[in-house]
Parts: sequence; structure tokens; C-alpha cells
Amino acid sequence: MSTITPPASSGRPFTWTVRVYYEDTDTGGIVYYANYLKFFERARTEWLRAAGVEQRRLAERFGLQFVVAQIACEYVQPARLDDLVEIDLRVRRAGRVSIVFDQTARRGADVLAHATVKAGCIDTRSFAPSPMPDDLVAAFRTLVEAPRAPQPLRAP
Amino acid sequence: MSTITPPASSGRPFTWTVRVYYEDTDTGGIVYYANYLKFFERARTEWLRAAGVEQRRLAERFGLQFVVAQIACEYVQPARLDDLVEIDLRVRRAGRVSIVFDQTARRGADVLAHATVKAGCIDTRSFAPSPMPDDLVAAFRTLVEAPRAPQPLRAP
Amino acid sequence: MSTITPPASSGRPFTWTVRVYYEDTDTGGIVYYANYLKFFERARTEWLRAAGVEQRRLAERFGLQFVVAQIACEYVQPARLDDLVEIDLRVRRAGRVSIVFDQTARRGADVLAHATVKAGCIDTRSFAPSPMPDDLVAAFRTLVEAPRAPQPLRAP
Amino acid sequence: MSTITPPASSGRPFTWTVRVYYEDTDTGGIVYYANYLKFFERARTEWLRAAGVEQRRLAERFGLQFVVAQIACEYVQPARLDDLVEIDLRVRRAGRVSIVFDQTARRGADVLAHATVKAGCIDTRSFAPSPMPDDLVAAFRTLVEAPRAPQPLRAP
Repeated sequence: MSTITPPASSGRPFTWTVRVYYEDTDTGGIVYYANYLKFFERARTEWLRAAGVEQRRLAERFGLQFVVAQIACEYVQPARLDDLVEIDLRVRRAGRVSIVFDQTARRGADVLAHATVKAGCIDTRSFAPSPMPDDLVAAFRTLVEAPRAPQPLRAP
Repeated sequence: MSTITPPASSGRPFTWTVRVYYEDTDTGGIVYYANYLKFFERARTEWLRAAGVEQRRLAERFGLQFVVAQIACEYVQPARLDDLVEIDLRVRRAGRVSIVFDQTARRGADVLAHATVKAGCIDTRSFAPSPMPDDLVAAFRTLVEAPRAPQPLRAP
Repeated sequence: MSTITPPASSGRPFTWTVRVYYEDTDTGGIVYYANYLKFFERARTEWLRAAGVEQRRLAERFGLQFVVAQIACEYVQPARLDDLVEIDLRVRRAGRVSIVFDQTARRGADVLAHATVKAGCIDTRSFAPSPMPDDLVAAFRTLVEAPRAPQPLRAP
Repeated sequence: MSTITPPASSGRPFTWTVRVYYEDTDTGGIVYYANYLKFFERARTEWLRAAGVEQRRLAERFGLQFVVAQIACEYVQPARLDDLVEIDLRVRRAGRVSIVFDQTARRGADVLAHATVKAGCIDTRSFAPSPMPDDLVAAFRTLVEAPRAPQPLRAP
């Protein structure tokens, strides 16, 4: 299992900030390893929302949903209760049925974890791979070629 | 907010055993308070399964699902990593659209938490209250009158 | 089990807003019932933070932590993916070793759930009840007498 | 990101069975992707327990704990409510401060997900890598050379 290295990029990534609550920690005094996947997904969700895509509407109108097909994650330093964790997101590759993200969790300049995530678009009923709507594919491709920097969203 | 006292009962309750994993704990070194609600629900699910009811089938065939309408829970002693926690379940009241459970979490003889839970039966599409199938109501009522003690299930 | 009614109050409550993500939902298409306890706790945490109390520091410096001793929660309407849920918090009663909150989850004007939560202050090592620092008790009592309305915090 | 292929092995893996509850699912009708990491960890915990290692004792007596350093996971097919999911575990590599597992989630013969997980042993206070006790290293190495098949544990 090789180390995952987030790609250099000239553009600023999309960033989403999460706070660490008791629910996120475990008895080791740190954020439980599975919970970073929640943080990463929140950032992808908000990135989609910033691009105009709400996933409930995607399911209801188009019968489509995104599911994670693959993830590789390296845990570098632990996060702890009350930490503010910033999640950076870059689109590495965007196709018709899948999209690959590079995501880094940081506390200030300290990298806590980084991950590569491949998400696929599927039909909500058959669970079969299904192409994204054309305008969505086009929008995503633009983001790969020239990673734009939308205003960092602030929750909520 | 008054103390919740589990009712005395002549019959043995239904019991389901859960193990405490890292995922269940928090940085305080104890099981996170919301996670007891998962433990209680696992016991209700297995009690239903022991009564012949699988909830996925209930949804798919009958368009029905159970949702919790009310819960009151008192936390008495903390559970910790690696503990084996036994969840006792008794039916306090069973109607056509709802059912009330008394549930206690124990570690051996030590009570960790007890709860009263009111679950309602709803239509999966409209989310409106919907009567349970007659045979289910009848089965549940029997359990109230003479709380039976099915063989304690062991996962899985 | 009686219905929980949030007390009328002249003052504006403290409010914290949470977004519903996939992680919060279940196969019934709604927010899983245990996850409201996470939402309620996030609001209490941010209310404490607004009052100048960070729980990690409370544990590290004073050897104290808050644990929930009792909760009663009524679920009124379901929340769904992508919903913005506002959590209102009022202090009902504040003592030396415990504090009682009234909390309501709303989507706009629609009440989704309300809860009464009793939290106790304990020693992080012995888990025994332990009085809060005097200035904290005094601050909390002020909030009960004249529920102030701090600026609703926005994450992060 | 390349596909993860679990290594062929002559020996039977260690297997732990988990049931899918509402808590594990999301509004897409399937098990939420982060929750497989909980399932994988439960299997590692029970494998450790079968080897005589309880993690709470490891922390209390030796000041050691395991943390995940890297994970790569491929999601093949979704699991759904009420499914019984079997988690196979094999030790791929065991060193003094880390151990690499191959883990597969199955529903009968259907592979749902497989993962490679690198766990490191750290000091509970400093969070610095710390060698495992000698007998533990020796025991783990034996498992790599000739993957034994302990009696599949049944919860609890």
C-alpha cells in the first residue's frame, strides 16, 4: 500500500470547515478513523451544492445518486475535540459516470489526513452505473482543467 | 424530568447482547450517549426478528416502517471499551399504531441506562401513522399480557 | 410517557444550525433518531463555547466533563437529506453539578423534535459528580433568570 | 487509484459476522460507506481478542493503542438493511510497530467491499509509534506465515 500524495495544483482548492465534537472522537482521545470519511463527504456535498447540485433533488428528479467506489486514505496526525478541521477538495479527474477527488484534512498548516476518493453516479433503483446529466459533466470537466476557487463556504 | 423506572415484571425479558467497540466510545473514555439509542434499537430489531418480522420486508411488502415517536432515557453508569452490554426489552403497551418498550442496558447486574421508547408504525411514503397488520398487533398484545421469554438471540 | 412541552420563554433562545448529510440519514429516508442527540449536543457545545467554555480545556485544566444524565425527546416530524435544521437551546435550570436544557429542532417554523436534557458535571477520572467552577455556575444562573440571546453562532 | 486485490491464501481467514441495522444505512437505501470501516474494525478487534489481546487492557497496562495509518477500500456491491455481512480478515504483513490486514466484506459468496488496512502501534500519551510487546509481534508473525483459522467467533 503506497503513500497517497495529493497532486500539486496551481489553483486554490475548495475548502470546507468542520468542528470536532464529542460524537467524532473515540476513547483514544482522537477523531475516530471512519469519521474522516464523513468529513470528506461533507466537503464533497458542499462543493456539489456550490456547483448548484443538491443530492436530494438529483435523486428525486433524475433518479441518480453518487456512491463512493474507492477510497484510499492516509492518516498523518490525529485531530482532537474542539479542533477546527479544514477539508480541501480538488477534482483530479471527471468522467461521465465517475469523478475522482483529492481531499486533505488540515488543522491550520498541519496535514491530518489525505484521501483520494472515486465516486460513481448510479441509478437509484437498479444501483447500476448511470451517466451524469451533460451539463454536470461539462461543469465538472471545467473544474479539472482550471480548478476554480469558489468562495469558501461557511456552514450552514 | 422524572426518573424512569422500569416496571416490575414476572416474566423474563428479551435480551440482546452488544460489545462496545471504539466506534461507540468518545474522548471521555465512555460510550457516547447517543449510541445507547443504537444499542436499544438493535435489541428491538432482534426482538422483532425473533417474532418473525424483518423490517426490510415490512417496508417492501407492506409499505410500513417503525419510527421512534418518543424516548426517555436515564444514564446511570458509563460503559467502556470492550464491555459486554446486555439490553433487556419488555413490551409495556401495544396498540394498533404504536408500541411502548421498556429497555435496560446492563453490564452483568449493573444497570447502565434505562429507557422508555414509544415506536409508531407509519406509511413509508406519506410518513403518516398507519395501523400494523392484524396478526402483528395480536402477537404484540400477547407479549404484553404474558411477557414471554424467547431464547436470547446471539448475534448473528 | 407524557408529551414534552418546551417552556414558553420571553427571551430569544440560543440557536445553532446544522445541515443534514448522508451520514445523518437512514434507509427510511429520514434522519436517524439517535442523530438528533448529536445535533442537540452540537448546539450545547457551541452554547458553551459562546459562554467561553471549551470542553477539552475544561477536561485538561479542571479535570471536569459534562455527561448527559437524562434525556427525554419527542420526535414530531422527520428531517431529510439537505435540510437545514435549527437547534434552539434554553437553560431551564442551572445548579452546581447539573444543568437542564430545553432544546428544539426546527426546519423554519416546523418543529421536528424537542428534548429536555439534564447534563451533569463529573470528575474525568472517578466519573463522580463534581461541582462546576463558581464563575461557570454564576454565568449559567444568569442565563436562566434572563435568557440572553447571544449572536447566533455560525460554524465554524 | 488501482483496484485492490485481496491476496490468494491457502489458509482460511478469520471471519466475523455483523448484522446491518438502521444505524448503518443511509437514505440511498444502502450501508453508508464510512460504516464499512466500523465493520472492518470490529473484525480486527475480535481477531485481537481471539489472540488474547483486549485493547482496553493494552492501553491501561502497556500504554499502547492501535491506530489506522492507511486504508484503501473498494466498494463492489451495496449491503442493505437486515443483511448478514461476513468480514474476512487475513494478516498480510506484521512488523514491530505496524501490521497490515486484508479484509473482505461478503454477503454469502458476494463480495461487497475489500480493504487493505495498515494499523500502527502508538504510545497512548505521546501518539508516537511504539513497538508492540515481543510476544505479540511473535504471535502476529506466526499468523502471517501460516494463517491459522481460529474458530469463527460469534458475538458476544
